[in-house]
Amino acid sequence: MKEDSAEEVLANCMHGKFHEGIFVYRQIFSVRSYEIGPDQTATIETILNFLQETALNHVGSSEIGGDGFGATREMSIRKLIWVVTRIQVQVQRYSAWGDIIEIDTWVDAHGKNGMRRDWVIRDHYTKEDLVRATSTWVMMNGETRKLCKIPEEVRKELTPFFINRFAISNKDTDSEKIHKLTDQDAENIQTGLVPRWNDMDANQHVNNVKYIGWVLECLPAEVLEDYYMTSMTLEFRRECTHSNMLESMAAPTSKLNIHGNNNYNYNSINNINTNLQFTHLLRLLDDDDDQRPEVVRARTEWHFKN
Amino acid sequence: MKEDSAEEVLANCMHGKFHEGIFVYRQIFSVRSYEIGPDQTATIETILNFLQETALNHVGSSEIGGDGFGATREMSIRKLIWVVTRIQVQVQRYSAWGDIIEIDTWVDAHGKNGMRRDWVIRDHYTKEDLVRATSTWVMMNGETRKLCKIPEEVRKELTPFFINRFAISNKDTDSEKIHKLTDQDAENIQTGLVPRWNDMDANQHVNNVKYIGWVLECLPAEVLEDYYMTSMTLEFRRECTHSNMLESMAAPTSKLNIHGNNNYNYNSINNINTNLQFTHLLRLLDDDDDQRPEVVRARTEWHFKN
Repeated sequence: MKEDSAEEVLANCMHGKFHEGIFVYRQIFSVRSYEIGPDQTATIETILNFLQETALNHVGSSEIGGDGFGATREMSIRKLIWVVTRIQVQVQRYSAWGDIIEIDTWVDAHGKNGMRRDWVIRDHYTKEDLVRATSTWVMMNGETRKLCKIPEEVRKELTPFFINRFAISNKDTDSEKIHKLTDQDAENIQTGLVPRWNDMDANQHVNNVKYIGWVLECLPAEVLEDYYMTSMTLEFRRECTHSNMLESMAAPTSKLNIHGNNNYNYNSINNINTNLQFTHLLRLLDDDDDQRPEVVRARTEWHFKN
Repeated sequence: MKEDSAEEVLANCMHGKFHEGIFVYRQIFSVRSYEIGPDQTATIETILNFLQETALNHVGSSEIGGDGFGATREMSIRKLIWVVTRIQVQVQRYSAWGDIIEIDTWVDAHGKNGMRRDWVIRDHYTKEDLVRATSTWVMMNGETRKLCKIPEEVRKELTPFFINRFAISNKDTDSEKIHKLTDQDAENIQTGLVPRWNDMDANQHVNNVKYIGWVLECLPAEVLEDYYMTSMTLEFRRECTHSNMLESMAAPTSKLNIHGNNNYNYNSINNINTNLQFTHLLRLLDDDDDQRPEVVRARTEWHFKN
């Protein structure tokens, strides 16, 4: 093998590669020892980290890549950044330590001023589908932190990449509103959550993926131990920084049945047999008790481990 | 290029490969977007995660690999596990997102009943040394959690891999005792630290690397923002689980000089010009106030960012 081609394979392994022309970007990952949880499979945070990395490399490896995290050149000139508003992740099977997986990602227009990004994670060798995900994004001025329309110059950069393909079929897409949890409804509350220094990203804000740990933290240990999450929808509403303190709340939407008997299969957003559903709210704790701004609303679905 | 050789390169990229016969194991990593901190370079946790992954793949890829995390076959039969007692990490330069690095690791005997494991991290393309690390390990019965001698059968498995080579030269090795911080000495204390569900490893114990976040958490924000860590020595004294609550304490060993003037270079364990040194203690918070068992003692050194 020539030195160059080995280096090429290495670069592809490390950063990913375009497929189907410029429509699909694919990156290969191995699940590492520190990316698995107590049950020895990849955590949901790990999965979201992989999705983020693939998305950023997708933009960064294309000719339109700018100098920011996922920004195009025309966005960088205007100090514009992408902000994710909603993400839905469906997990068919969690990978184990050492498994080699491949992630495809692509983008499409979403309404007049948004972008949709989808992902499919497959086992690299068997090509079994493991995870499907979809997300919507809007544009923000990184300095004023105000939402804005997609400028025509940015739209021109993006459009050639758009492909009308859905990772999650229309009928399985969770487009339902996530209701705002109230103090009365919440059955599980964990308060006084504090971001650690290393939860911050390069913008001095808490990285989106870190929220998941807090969202899950308030669930009963039995749920985290005896069930695996089959679906998660996150709705991002506000940024938070190192100085914020947070509160995580949850309420079961279906009757909590932690022993797995009577596995009733109600009208789930997921094709997989679902045993539990929770609604979540992560909110800021302010000095003023009446003001607890929402950071993330979420819905999770769980399946009993056999 | 043949399909096979591409798959071989892929496997090497993902899991690593032996070099110099069976003496050195090398794995290549790219630093990912979620592995960098607020200053856009790999965090010290990321570096320790990489070291752990390389060590585990080293054992797992060899013929003596057992079914546990880093255990050999003869260890697995006896339910023996490795426990790290001390690790010293010297950082010359922190990598940035997308950088491709290679990590070499090897092992040697340490005294009569220990093992030493060393690592060197280099930039894959320039071969510049970035990090050097050394650690000592002892054997524990995974069920009784008691330390034990290395059985003869295990020693026979390990000895062929031993190589007398030091990542950190003798004079730069931090073999000095880390003094136990007292309540009187500690200048920075952060109490009520609680492990999150995902801090647990496959053994339901807090993963060693997670301690670092807590060790650093109590330092003044100015240190974390304006300095980078050049050296860290951790001494592991006790395991902790999900039900424990912890307290992190620190005291500057040299005079705190956060504006970087008068950069006196005292007798550092590190060749790099050092501006700050801290002694740390992470301890359990028990109901009984007098009993606060030590989890980790640490010493860190910091250099002012120019």
